[in-house]
Amino acid sequence: MTREIEFKSDITVNAIQSMGGDHMVVAAAKVSTCGNDALDFTDPERANENRGLINYLMKHRHGTPFEHAAMTFFVHAPIFVWREWHRHRIGFSYNEESGRYKTLDPIFYLPKYGRPMMKVEGWKPGRPKFLKCEDDDIHVSLEDNLRRSYKISYEMYERNLELGVDPGLARACLPVGIYSGCWVTCNPRSLMAFLSLRTHEPNATAVSYPLHEMELAARACEETLEVGYPLTYQAFNANGRVAP
Amino acid sequence: MTREIEFKSDITVNAIQSMGGDHMVVAAAKVSTCGNDALDFTDPERANENRGLINYLMKHRHGTPFEHAAMTFFVHAPIFVWREWHRHRIGFSYNEESGRYKTLDPIFYLPKYGRPMMKVEGWKPGRPKFLKCEDDDIHVSLEDNLRRSYKISYEMYERNLELGVDPGLARACLPVGIYSGCWVTCNPRSLMAFLSLRTHEPNATAVSYPLHEMELAARACEETLEVGYPLTYQAFNANGRVAP
Amino acid sequence: MTREIEFKSDITVNAIQSMGGDHMVVAAAKVSTCGNDALDFTDPERANENRGLINYLMKHRHGTPFEHAAMTFFVHAPIFVWREWHRHRIGFSYNEESGRYKTLDPIFYLPKYGRPMMKVEGWKPGRPKFLKCEDDDIHVSLEDNLRRSYKISYEMYERNLELGVDPGLARACLPVGIYSGCWVTCNPRSLMAFLSLRTHEPNATAVSYPLHEMELAARACEETLEVGYPLTYQAFNANGRVAP
Amino acid sequence: MTREIEFKSDITVNAIQSMGGDHMVVAAAKVSTCGNDALDFTDPERANENRGLINYLMKHRHGTPFEHAAMTFFVHAPIFVWREWHRHRIGFSYNEESGRYKTLDPIFYLPKYGRPMMKVEGWKPGRPKFLKCEDDDIHVSLEDNLRRSYKISYEMYERNLELGVDPGLARACLPVGIYSGCWVTCNPRSLMAFLSLRTHEPNATAVSYPLHEMELAARACEETLEVGYPLTYQAFNANGRVAP
Repeated sequence: MTREIEFKSDITVNAIQSMGGDHMVVAAAKVSTCGNDALDFTDPERANENRGLINYLMKHRHGTPFEHAAMTFFVHAPIFVWREWHRHRIGFSYNEESGRYKTLDPIFYLPKYGRPMMKVEGWKPGRPKFLKCEDDDIHVSLEDNLRRSYKISYEMYERNLELGVDPGLARACLPVGIYSGCWVTCNPRSLMAFLSLRTHEPNATAVSYPLHEMELAARACEETLEVGYPLTYQAFNANGRVAP
Repeated sequence: MTREIEFKSDITVNAIQSMGGDHMVVAAAKVSTCGNDALDFTDPERANENRGLINYLMKHRHGTPFEHAAMTFFVHAPIFVWREWHRHRIGFSYNEESGRYKTLDPIFYLPKYGRPMMKVEGWKPGRPKFLKCEDDDIHVSLEDNLRRSYKISYEMYERNLELGVDPGLARACLPVGIYSGCWVTCNPRSLMAFLSLRTHEPNATAVSYPLHEMELAARACEETLEVGYPLTYQAFNANGRVAP
Repeated sequence: MTREIEFKSDITVNAIQSMGGDHMVVAAAKVSTCGNDALDFTDPERANENRGLINYLMKHRHGTPFEHAAMTFFVHAPIFVWREWHRHRIGFSYNEESGRYKTLDPIFYLPKYGRPMMKVEGWKPGRPKFLKCEDDDIHVSLEDNLRRSYKISYEMYERNLELGVDPGLARACLPVGIYSGCWVTCNPRSLMAFLSLRTHEPNATAVSYPLHEMELAARACEETLEVGYPLTYQAFNANGRVAP
Repeated sequence: MTREIEFKSDITVNAIQSMGGDHMVVAAAKVSTCGNDALDFTDPERANENRGLINYLMKHRHGTPFEHAAMTFFVHAPIFVWREWHRHRIGFSYNEESGRYKTLDPIFYLPKYGRPMMKVEGWKPGRPKFLKCEDDDIHVSLEDNLRRSYKISYEMYERNLELGVDPGLARACLPVGIYSGCWVTCNPRSLMAFLSLRTHEPNATAVSYPLHEMELAARACEETLEVGYPLTYQAFNANGRVAP
């Protein structure tokens, strides 16, 4: 093996650029009733006085005003997270690291101690909830299994590349636990649709049971929404986290 | 009639906000081959050195890197223009003035002298090209017909509103020549798809024959692309104005 | 005027073709847990035994299994209805009669007696509910205003066409109350999103206040869902008419 | 290891259901010029007389008439193929086998002898073309590497499952060469967009360089288009395989 394997337990989400804010949600909604004068509401100072409007839009599912904004993230996550994320088609744009065009780096996912993973009694596949693992041996065994498999996979990948074959074929043995980087652009509406399905909130109108690592990624994006669109975010929570 | 009618011949397009630029197209594309290091390319200074990459993406129709950017316009245009514009579904967000929620203003479209409108000989509906009208009488008659009809329509609209009925019904007599304001958010990729179908360029790979007023609107948006994404715009033209 | 004006109060919705049914919703969902064996569930006889699964998908907003089906409608409706309908972008395909390519027929919308249209006391624009008009004079006046305006508009349209000008310009005086035909293709998921916003059900989780004529169209489509996807339809209603 | 590993070199594509055909493309297009009378063209017998219209639509990129149709496939392919396929967002619906809800079967991809895989001289990542491998040793080594890695990966996966942990975590060591089943629903327009990017045709207007296994899948879908929409398919090829 030529390269040393690295293990990582985080999902890294970096905000790269953004456009808009609560004031743009307000202004876009105001065009219905004010036409051209909606432009007066693009002043960020005026967002707060229209808190009620944002709540009304959310509650009655007037979704389009939440689309006149955008944000781009650079995310580093295991492929098994991307596999779920990329299923979000509408209002999401992606550009990902490619195993056909570059040698993938030997960075692999290992769960942190404390990652909930033990099936509860009466566990049902439809509502996959897990408890923290109290038995260290289980965690150690899991980690050993993953490490061992990851190591062989990457070694075989390197050997395949040395044969000079198509890198798109050489990678077939790489596991879904390997990390991959991706640019993600979305808007507040598509982000809320994503959050409603990829975070677990017992009080949500429709409770979701996402994969733990998927939720880690979603929660990191959620912070950006909370900071950049405080009124929108508050209304999202106040209305059962149903995307408008 | 209580309000005075206004006539207008322009389509007004105002850029409200934007995010991204050629450098973000480059950086998003670079993630395929550079992963995390793609972030080095988000520096606007580095766009120019990657002119060739942008051209390559356009030529080979790698469209996604052109989606990590966004722009919002406020557009004032006749309803018959909106009827066509709103058919662009992907990568377009709209919020429009509503006849259900506000009284529509009496602003109506009249063509400028010189608006090409006379059918050429051998004219085919599939390729609707028109010549300028050399006969002033025709233009005057057309204008008279439109003014007369617009006036009655708006008068009846006002009478309907006075009856206290649902404004969404009262407006049924308003013509498609009345102006309406709308917020439009798109990205460079969706904008190029729009431009390729809604502008007439004899040298384009697939020549389009748009409605004159639709093209006026598209050309105004095109200026924003030209100024904000000069390399993307150049590559779009150099590759037959086929959206990637 | 060369052609006689016709008035119409209905929205006509004809189902042209369809694919799928409750059994395909079930089978598509079963691929998650059964892989290849999901094909066993494509037998229409087996839908009923999976009523609970369909309800589960709806409740937990697992939307994708409702996309493996399709239906096409031919709809004849006034332009003011199309203006709203065409704002549904995702999972909807449209081909509409074109004022640029054909002479539009003189068929115009008049409301039936009984169409709710009088503002209730304390009426708010955000929740536009209307009462039936008890005063015949109001209905007669409204109808007179519309007829008069429609007539002039169509007469001026015909005169414009006689001038030989671009039909796309000649139509600028035609009102949004004129009828237009359109093909609409959607799937059960996109149809439910449409129904949730375009029908008024007091018991829905998010109550909508659609335009009366828009709801007429939506209700006609709803019948197709009810007949073709009885279990899906039942689950949609049982879960607050929130599209999954 | 409790289950025996299986190897497979094919991508299986089974058509499950379909709606529409060339006649529906014609009829949907005819609504522009014929309105209600477009219904006369829904007779399959009449498609052939409108071959020229289909070619015109394709050439001038009038894409919407190709959306009033649908087809569903069940596809069995390695995850590295799904990773590319799922990036097609518009006009594509997916339901895939889930590692969270079921134990994934030990079926893995091995390339056939003859799968082009050797980089040509002057090979560039932007246009990844490969030659067949003339050296048996290389093929044997590649296969050995893959087999060895696949075996360990699946063994560790089974051990993880035995620990009773979250199956969504246990699978992290499974490789992208493992097979997964998925339902795919699309329409002729979205399928042509897919084919234009995922097949290599030297004479196409924009030549694509897809991954070999991705192209195998695309070619299998292409047969369905060829058989079910012969005129559309012919026009697609005659116009440089640019999706309309």
